[in-house]
Amino acid sequence: MNEELLALCKRAKSAAPTLSVMSTGEKNRALRLISEGLERDKESIFAANAADVEAARQSGTPAAMLDRLTLTPARLESCRQGIAEVIALPDPVGRIESGIYRDNGLKIIKNRVPLGVVGVIYEARPNVTVDVAALCFKSGNVCILRGGKEALGSNKALTDSIRKSLSEGGFSPDYVQLIESTDRAVTNEFMAMRGYVDVLIPRGGAGLIQAVVENAKVPVIETGAGICHVYVDEGADLEQAAVVVDNAKTSRPSVCNAADCLLVHRSVADEFLPVVKARLDAHHVQLRCCPEALKILSGQEGVVAAGPDDFDTEFLDYILAVKVVDSMQEAMEHIALHGTGHSEAIMTRDMNRAELFLRGVDAAAVYVNASTRFTDGGVFGLGAEIGISTQKLHARGPMGLEELTTIKYTVYGNGQVR
Amino acid sequence: MNEELLALCKRAKSAAPTLSVMSTGEKNRALRLISEGLERDKESIFAANAADVEAARQSGTPAAMLDRLTLTPARLESCRQGIAEVIALPDPVGRIESGIYRDNGLKIIKNRVPLGVVGVIYEARPNVTVDVAALCFKSGNVCILRGGKEALGSNKALTDSIRKSLSEGGFSPDYVQLIESTDRAVTNEFMAMRGYVDVLIPRGGAGLIQAVVENAKVPVIETGAGICHVYVDEGADLEQAAVVVDNAKTSRPSVCNAADCLLVHRSVADEFLPVVKARLDAHHVQLRCCPEALKILSGQEGVVAAGPDDFDTEFLDYILAVKVVDSMQEAMEHIALHGTGHSEAIMTRDMNRAELFLRGVDAAAVYVNASTRFTDGGVFGLGAEIGISTQKLHARGPMGLEELTTIKYTVYGNGQVR
Repeated sequence: MNEELLALCKRAKSAAPTLSVMSTGEKNRALRLISEGLERDKESIFAANAADVEAARQSGTPAAMLDRLTLTPARLESCRQGIAEVIALPDPVGRIESGIYRDNGLKIIKNRVPLGVVGVIYEARPNVTVDVAALCFKSGNVCILRGGKEALGSNKALTDSIRKSLSEGGFSPDYVQLIESTDRAVTNEFMAMRGYVDVLIPRGGAGLIQAVVENAKVPVIETGAGICHVYVDEGADLEQAAVVVDNAKTSRPSVCNAADCLLVHRSVADEFLPVVKARLDAHHVQLRCCPEALKILSGQEGVVAAGPDDFDTEFLDYILAVKVVDSMQEAMEHIALHGTGHSEAIMTRDMNRAELFLRGVDAAAVYVNASTRFTDGGVFGLGAEIGISTQKLHARGPMGLEELTTIKYTVYGNGQVR
Repeated sequence: MNEELLALCKRAKSAAPTLSVMSTGEKNRALRLISEGLERDKESIFAANAADVEAARQSGTPAAMLDRLTLTPARLESCRQGIAEVIALPDPVGRIESGIYRDNGLKIIKNRVPLGVVGVIYEARPNVTVDVAALCFKSGNVCILRGGKEALGSNKALTDSIRKSLSEGGFSPDYVQLIESTDRAVTNEFMAMRGYVDVLIPRGGAGLIQAVVENAKVPVIETGAGICHVYVDEGADLEQAAVVVDNAKTSRPSVCNAADCLLVHRSVADEFLPVVKARLDAHHVQLRCCPEALKILSGQEGVVAAGPDDFDTEFLDYILAVKVVDSMQEAMEHIALHGTGHSEAIMTRDMNRAELFLRGVDAAAVYVNASTRFTDGGVFGLGAEIGISTQKLHARGPMGLEELTTIKYTVYGNGQVR
C-alpha cells in the first residue's frame, strides 16, 4: 500500500461531506475564483506545458499526441469558457426528483446527491484537468485526478493554480487532488480504493480503458474509446456523404468521436470512393482498404491493403479503414462486431432505412446524415463534459453534471412498521 | 471456455434485438401467459421445491436459509401478483426522454432503450427467479439467471414453465435462460462474458457480492448486502423506538433490509435497552453487546459480548449487535464505517437532528422514525424489484423497470459537419 496515495484518498474522503452540502452560490463563487486564477497563473501554466511538450517531442511522440498535449492560449481560454458554462448550468444537487406519501403515512422523498469522491484517469490532455475539476466541483464531488505522465508538469501547474484559488477563497484545497506519482503500481492501487473512491472514470484510448476494467475494484464508467463508423448507403447523397466523411475523419482526428472506418454499399462504391478519396487527399489521409475497395482505388497514393487489426483500431490519426459491404445489414453487423458503442452514422436519403439503422445499431449516439464529431457534451446541451460513456450503465454518451450525481431516498415516518 | 455456457450466452445475445423492440402489448401478453403457466405447472414446481427443501434440510441448512428456499403457495401467488403488477406498470422502453434542435438544424433525441442482456446471480430464493424474469422481460431485456445451487430443481421447474409459456405464445424461449451448471468456474466465466452480457446484478449476501466484484469483467450493479442500523437518539419516543427496532429485526430476519445493529444514545441506554430486550425476547433474539450495553443487560438470557466481527456482519437471523454511543455524531461515524449503504434509521423527536442524520448518512435509504424494512420496490412504488442497489452508479435503492434500461441518442441531420 502506497502511504502517500492512501493519505491523499483519506483527505479526499474527509473533504467530501462539506462539499456535498455546499450551496450552489458558494460553489459558483469558487468556480469564478478558479477561472480568474487560471488567467492569473497562465504564464507558469504555459511554461510548464511548453516543457512537457518539448520533452514529449524529443522522445518522439507522434504528432496527434503532441496536439492533445499542447495547451495553447485558445485552449486555456476554452477551458475558462467551459468553467463559465458550468457556472451557468443548473446545479443538480439538492433537487428533489420525486416523492410519494404511502397509505400508512410514510413520506418517501427521492433526492439528488453527489457521488462523493470521483477518480478520473486520463491521458496527456491538460485541458481535461480543468474540465474535470470544474464539473466535479459544481456537482459536489471531490475529484482525484491521474493524468497522463507526459502532462504531469502541466497538470501540476493547473491544479496548483486551482488549489491556490480555492484556499484564497476560504475553501478546502483538498476538493481537487492530483496523483503526482506516475508509477503504474500506484495507479493500480488507486483503482482498488474501495471505501475511498465512489466511482472511477477512465478517459482515453482502448489500452487505458482495458487496463482500468481489468484492475478496478471500484465501480467504473467506461469512457472514451471510439471506433466510429460512417456507412454510406445506396442512394445516399454522395457529395454530402463525402463532406461528412471528410469532416468525421479530418476535423480533429485525435479525439474519440472521429471516424475510423468507412463502410460503403457495393452499389455506390465505384462512384463514391474516388470522390471521397479526392477530398481526403487534402489531409493526406491514408486509406486502409478491404480487397474490393483496394481494387477500386488501385494504384493511388495513400491507398494500402487493410491489415488484420485495421477494423478494430481507433487510429487517432489521419488514417481511415475502408470496407465495401453488400447491404445495410452487413454494415450493421460489422458495426456490432467492431464498434465500441460510441458514435455511428448512416448517410442515406431513405427514411425507412435510416430508422432501421437508428434503431438497430447499439451505440451511445447514432446519426443519420451528420458527422460523428457532434457527440459532445456542449453540442448535446450538457455544458463541458467529463467524458463520453461507452457503456450502458449509469450514463451513456456525453456525461455532464447530472451524470456525476446519484440519488438518495429519505423516508419520514412516525413509528411505521412493516 | 465452457462451450455450453458460451452457446447459452450466444442464444441470449441473438434473442436480444427482437425483444428490445417488442411492443408493450406483446410483452404484456407474454407475461400473462407466463403467470397462467405458473398456475398450470404449480404441482411440478412445488414438487421440485419440496425436493430442494428436503435435500437442504438433510444437509443441515440453517432455518433462515430454509425459509428463503421454501416456495409456499402464498409465495407463488405473490410471484403471480408481482407479474400482474409488472404488467400494470408503464413500459419505460421507447419513451423519448428529451430532445433538442440545435441552431445548425441537427435534431438530437434522447431515447430510453433496454440494456440488452442482463445476468443475475442470486442465492437460493426461487421466487427471485420469477421476479427477475418478469422485470427483465417487461423492460425488453433477455435475462440469464444463475440461482443458488440449493434451489436448482425449483429454478429449473420455474424456468421450464416460463419457457414453455413463451413458446406456446409464439415467443422465443431464449428470452429467459437458466445456467444449470453449479460449477464455480462456470460462474466465473459467466462474469467475464464481455460482449454477451451487458450488466451483471448479484443479489445476495456479502460473500456473493464480494465474489462478483472480484471476478466480474462486465459492468456490475452491487445489490443486496445490507448491514442496517437503527439509531435511538436521546429524546426519542422509546416505546415507539422499541416497536420499530423489533419490527426491523424480527419481521423477516432473512432479508437484506432487516436490522443488524442497534445504536443507542448513552443518555437513554439505561431506560431503553431493557424495554427493547423485553420485546425482542418474544423471538428469542440474541443480543451481541458492546461492554456498556452488556453491563446494562448483564445476566439476562440471550445477552452475550459482541465479538470482533459482530459489527460488520449481516446476520440474516435472530441476532442483533448492540452498541451504546456518546452522540449522534458517533452513531453516524459508526454507520459510515460499518454500514453497507443500504438502509439506516434514526428514532428521534428532534427535527433538526433528524435532518442532520438524513443528510449526513450516506446510504440508499435513510429513515426517521420508521422501520428499515420498508426499503422495497413495492413500497417505493416500482412494483416488483430486481434488487436493491447498494452502490451509487446507475441505480441506488430498489431497482424496478426503469433501472433495467439505458438511453440512446439518435441524431437527425441533413449533412451537418463540425
